[in-house]
Amino acid sequence: MSNYKIPFNKPFITGNELEYIQDAVDYGKISGNGKYTQKIHRFFERQFGFKKCLLTTSCTDALEMAAILLDVEPGDEIIIPSYTFVSTANAFVLRGAVIRFVDSRKDHPGIDEDKIEELITEKTKAIVVVHYAGVACDMDKVMDIANRHNLFVVEDAAQAINSYYEHADGIRSPLGSIAHLGTFSFHETKNIIAGEGGMLTINDDRFAERAEIIWEKGTNRTAFFRGEVDKYGWVDIGSSFLPSELNAAFLYAQLMNLIRIQQKRMCIWNRYQKGLEGVCKRLGIRQPGIPGYATNNGHMYYLVCRNRRQRDELIAYLKERDVLSVFHYQPLHTSKFFQDRHDGRTLPYTDLYSHNLVRLPFYYELTVEEQDYIIDAINNFRRVEIQPPLPVAVARSVADQAV
Amino acid sequence: MSNYKIPFNKPFITGNELEYIQDAVDYGKISGNGKYTQKIHRFFERQFGFKKCLLTTSCTDALEMAAILLDVEPGDEIIIPSYTFVSTANAFVLRGAVIRFVDSRKDHPGIDEDKIEELITEKTKAIVVVHYAGVACDMDKVMDIANRHNLFVVEDAAQAINSYYEHADGIRSPLGSIAHLGTFSFHETKNIIAGEGGMLTINDDRFAERAEIIWEKGTNRTAFFRGEVDKYGWVDIGSSFLPSELNAAFLYAQLMNLIRIQQKRMCIWNRYQKGLEGVCKRLGIRQPGIPGYATNNGHMYYLVCRNRRQRDELIAYLKERDVLSVFHYQPLHTSKFFQDRHDGRTLPYTDLYSHNLVRLPFYYELTVEEQDYIIDAINNFRRVEIQPPLPVAVARSVADQAV
Repeated sequence: MSNYKIPFNKPFITGNELEYIQDAVDYGKISGNGKYTQKIHRFFERQFGFKKCLLTTSCTDALEMAAILLDVEPGDEIIIPSYTFVSTANAFVLRGAVIRFVDSRKDHPGIDEDKIEELITEKTKAIVVVHYAGVACDMDKVMDIANRHNLFVVEDAAQAINSYYEHADGIRSPLGSIAHLGTFSFHETKNIIAGEGGMLTINDDRFAERAEIIWEKGTNRTAFFRGEVDKYGWVDIGSSFLPSELNAAFLYAQLMNLIRIQQKRMCIWNRYQKGLEGVCKRLGIRQPGIPGYATNNGHMYYLVCRNRRQRDELIAYLKERDVLSVFHYQPLHTSKFFQDRHDGRTLPYTDLYSHNLVRLPFYYELTVEEQDYIIDAINNFRRVEIQPPLPVAVARSVADQAV
Repeated sequence: MSNYKIPFNKPFITGNELEYIQDAVDYGKISGNGKYTQKIHRFFERQFGFKKCLLTTSCTDALEMAAILLDVEPGDEIIIPSYTFVSTANAFVLRGAVIRFVDSRKDHPGIDEDKIEELITEKTKAIVVVHYAGVACDMDKVMDIANRHNLFVVEDAAQAINSYYEHADGIRSPLGSIAHLGTFSFHETKNIIAGEGGMLTINDDRFAERAEIIWEKGTNRTAFFRGEVDKYGWVDIGSSFLPSELNAAFLYAQLMNLIRIQQKRMCIWNRYQKGLEGVCKRLGIRQPGIPGYATNNGHMYYLVCRNRRQRDELIAYLKERDVLSVFHYQPLHTSKFFQDRHDGRTLPYTDLYSHNLVRLPFYYELTVEEQDYIIDAINNFRRVEIQPPLPVAVARSVADQAV
């Protein structure tokens, strides 16, 4: 697919995916909510203690389910970080919400928890946090704010499978299990993949029954199959949020290799962190740090360059060596869609990460040799003079902002 | 999956599905809009002359794209048949629309085209028609009404792949190509399947560019990949409407067998029609008819019984013989969700089909022997006295209202 010797991402097939897909076909059901979907729900409920899980066609769709479940109505205010993927905000905009964007932390691209409370008004309904790079936000702080103001919290845990938050009392909770609702992604760029895919976790029992209805196009079909009602019909709004068994079967094969995948990804992460220490110090580039209350799930490896020019030069430099590294995100508060809706506050750290952050190739099949090639290249990186602005072709080729 | 000797539906695998899925994985891209998605777009654009196609995760999602594209806003009125699946209406309710439901035709479960115009007000924005059982609505009539009142039309062609409408001038148009927008389903119960899946057809150029944006979560990512813009960002509302390449690869294998599948399904349909002629006349059961302006795509075979009791008895009778037949739909205008929103009109033919219609087993792998077994059984069907009401267990087992 990619024309690079070392692409940014490569979807990994663990071995049993096609066998399980064949099994789903043989079993006679490849639409949604079949045996693989149910196996996955049970896996997550047992292994991570999520109270209730519902597989979705994408994390975007899981966020849209959350917005419907929270009864978001026109004018309701939702507090969201600006440095995130479009869907985190768009899901709530679809229900008519007003978005109040929060800046990132100085020391981490995640939401600055200390800047949430000042945005709360009597119209605020929910806070959505994003566990960027699979690294936890300070959830005790966020939940305390929410509880004091009687707000809902959604964890956008798109990148955060198998990552944890350590509470003040030392207890560890899996990300996605702490707030009222959580959302995960199984997009091909994630640790565990289904091509496209996602999941909603429902940690507050009040939402459990309605979540099933919204998932099934606003019908009580799930209760019907359990024999709780004698026919099913249209009882609420909803959508077709459930994925095919084809995707569920593929995903289940991946989940059965979760531990192996996580081990390998942590090796890759640690090798980058160690191998780039010297050059980063030399060039004033920041390596990722993991706060004491968070764990690392080896989702991504990024560097924060000194400035945009250095970042763009590093990407172009790696490109010349046939290595695809990418940046993200365009800040949402200054996006074409939102700029006229924004309240005018500057969000300097959002801009900083948007300008200066670069993600290095990261996938299961990245070999030690390939990784050493990348590390060696970066170690030999010097400030190369390129006349600004970058040619469009270069800017374009480096900008595959994989979700 | 099903516990019946002859289930209602069996997803059919044509032979190349897993090979193509493997190829997608080897190609290095299993998220959306990869090479199989693009192959499918080209297939439909060439074979059926749709101006532009966008594959979606479901027909529900294609309908939701249509509602966003038409800029449906709170208070806008949309005219829709009541005898249809929930999503036809729900997609517009999600945007705040007021639904005005239309009755079915006396001679066919499709929308009564003569009852549309009386529902048009100055708030009406669009008419959504459903080609029930893959049999065309009278599109010349519908488009004439829409044109005179300056309304948009959406064809819900969920069941209507490879079916046609013959205009007054004798020209045949594929269903889904006539109105401004069309929607298809590739749910496992359809002729051509992807497990879950759908497609939006865009026949009016005004919608083409924005459709791509809405499809890609409200971003201009598709234009970015074509090199038309040098970075992409949030420019509109949208969702993650695009399916994984896993589903697209599966679907492409199916499409490569479209002609063979259609031949076989037409044989099954014709065998039912011929084999049940006698018993239907004897018992006053109505067989399906195809209007002169429509074609039959062998999507489903249904019977319209004399009354609900006869229908329920036929379903129970077949169940005793290990054959699963099913009914649908619950009328939307009297659903729990909508009953208090409805304007009070009675829709007698909607109720009639909801009470009296039964769908017989219909899938590619249904053998001649199995079909003869069903036909023979129905030929021996007599009015059996069962004390009403039917036991809940029976009502439940017959009610799998597959979409």
